[in-house]
Amino acid sequence: LGAFGGVFKAGFGGADPRLVASIDGVGTKTIVAGMAGDYSGLGADLVNHCVNDILCQGARPLFFLDYFGCGRLEEEAFAQAVGGAAEACRAVGCALIGGETAEMPGVYVDGEVDLVGCIVGLVEGARCLPRAGVASGDRIIGLASSGLHTNGYSLARRALFQGAGLSVGDLMPDGRQTVGQALLQVHRCYFSALWPWISGEESPILALAHITGGGLPDNLPRIIPGGLMARIDDRTWDEPAIFGLIQEAGQISRAEMLHAFNMGIGMTAIVRREDAAAVMQGLGEAGVEAWDIGSLSPGAREAVIA
Amino acid sequence: LGAFGGVFKAGFGGADPRLVASIDGVGTKTIVAGMAGDYSGLGADLVNHCVNDILCQGARPLFFLDYFGCGRLEEEAFAQAVGGAAEACRAVGCALIGGETAEMPGVYVDGEVDLVGCIVGLVEGARCLPRAGVASGDRIIGLASSGLHTNGYSLARRALFQGAGLSVGDLMPDGRQTVGQALLQVHRCYFSALWPWISGEESPILALAHITGGGLPDNLPRIIPGGLMARIDDRTWDEPAIFGLIQEAGQISRAEMLHAFNMGIGMTAIVRREDAAAVMQGLGEAGVEAWDIGSLSPGAREAVIA
Repeated sequence: LGAFGGVFKAGFGGADPRLVASIDGVGTKTIVAGMAGDYSGLGADLVNHCVNDILCQGARPLFFLDYFGCGRLEEEAFAQAVGGAAEACRAVGCALIGGETAEMPGVYVDGEVDLVGCIVGLVEGARCLPRAGVASGDRIIGLASSGLHTNGYSLARRALFQGAGLSVGDLMPDGRQTVGQALLQVHRCYFSALWPWISGEESPILALAHITGGGLPDNLPRIIPGGLMARIDDRTWDEPAIFGLIQEAGQISRAEMLHAFNMGIGMTAIVRREDAAAVMQGLGEAGVEAWDIGSLSPGAREAVIA
Repeated sequence: LGAFGGVFKAGFGGADPRLVASIDGVGTKTIVAGMAGDYSGLGADLVNHCVNDILCQGARPLFFLDYFGCGRLEEEAFAQAVGGAAEACRAVGCALIGGETAEMPGVYVDGEVDLVGCIVGLVEGARCLPRAGVASGDRIIGLASSGLHTNGYSLARRALFQGAGLSVGDLMPDGRQTVGQALLQVHRCYFSALWPWISGEESPILALAHITGGGLPDNLPRIIPGGLMARIDDRTWDEPAIFGLIQEAGQISRAEMLHAFNMGIGMTAIVRREDAAAVMQGLGEAGVEAWDIGSLSPGAREAVIA
């Protein structure tokens, strides 16, 4: 009765509880979903993007709200997207407490949708990331992405569909999935793999950067203290085949690729050199391939990738 | 450093603190803003809509995040909308802690935008609305709206612009403002007028319903307990002229008008009969015209308006 908003109990305890909130969309991945007639992954894309964002400040998800905007509501697309969001919330113990659907003919192109989500999480002040003490010599661990996640879809569509004339049903070079399937791989959620570390008393994780729009060059510097730079060796990890296909199809420079896409690294963690091997092994056991992709050294707060 | 999400201190105190959250948009009011070249009110529309929503559960706003979706970013529209949101947040003591801008050509019609906001507020459990004890004989107080607020714009545009061939620059019948100005009146915020009542120990406000999409017939029943109905006399309040103009221009039935628009009542409060006069006087002193528009009686959880 009277639920104009979702409710969440807020007697958090702890010495210094802090809420961390983020609002985000899934970009024009919605257009690819429409081309493939498959909106089933978009809800998880949205939730996982948000979960990863607040994880970078050490927060675990509490609750989530979604917004589905469209010209005219197509029930099947809506049910797939929102059902996927609900499932992705459950997977990380996050309550889906609200949502809104807006039909806006004249604002949205016929048949297209936008999907927006807002997450609120909790972190105890002493556990906030990034932690103090990130220093020269620290290693940068790269965690494998599942593909484009939710960034770079306008460039990818231009290269693959307009440039190379491919369609979502065409097979990838290895013949194991279609281009549409490769593009629609769900944005990977790093919560389960990282939470056991960052919730612990003596966490080896000093800082986390979610690699979204702007790629490694724009997102890594967000967690690098002044006076330091990141040197990344991009031969250290396995790049999903979709990136090479996009680069070739669109004749895109390596620099532009690195700015538009995560290139196979969806999250980076900064750790002490002596902790790197244990963290990578733990992540691997949690099902997330991870590589030592570089290190911090004195410099001007940038990420140099070569 | 590392701000992938906005942070809010959460040591709330109180016996049973609860967060109340809501996500919402401003509908196709964005299109009218585009026609008039004036996005300055949309941010306040969005914030005030959200503030009013959680106020219906007795919550005061804590923090807000906005999302601006478009085909190609137009800096002026963006600055107007987000600047207005920031100002509206300040007016109610709400922190604007995050936001996202998405350029999605192919999803949004050229030149059109969507504006989405998510608010999180706080209420102490014992102060939650609606309160128990709403009963037959209780009065329904209607609080004046400023116009359409954020609902019914697709129907209004069809009636005024396509039906009657009016433009945003045409004068209203009274000659005191243009049709565009009447349509773009900012969604009224009821927080300042109602908070002194609902935050008090012995509040006379038993329940609040924000009159948004679906109008009085759909929103009032959301706060009516089973076994009761609301009888509303729609001659009891002053209806802004824009509604009559829309109704005439579109040859729209009264029933459809009541479902599409707030018709001049932006918020309703349920109070005891003996408290009605004092509440209306207090609201008037706070600058919000209010009328005794009806009462509750035994019936089947509906609002009958005649």
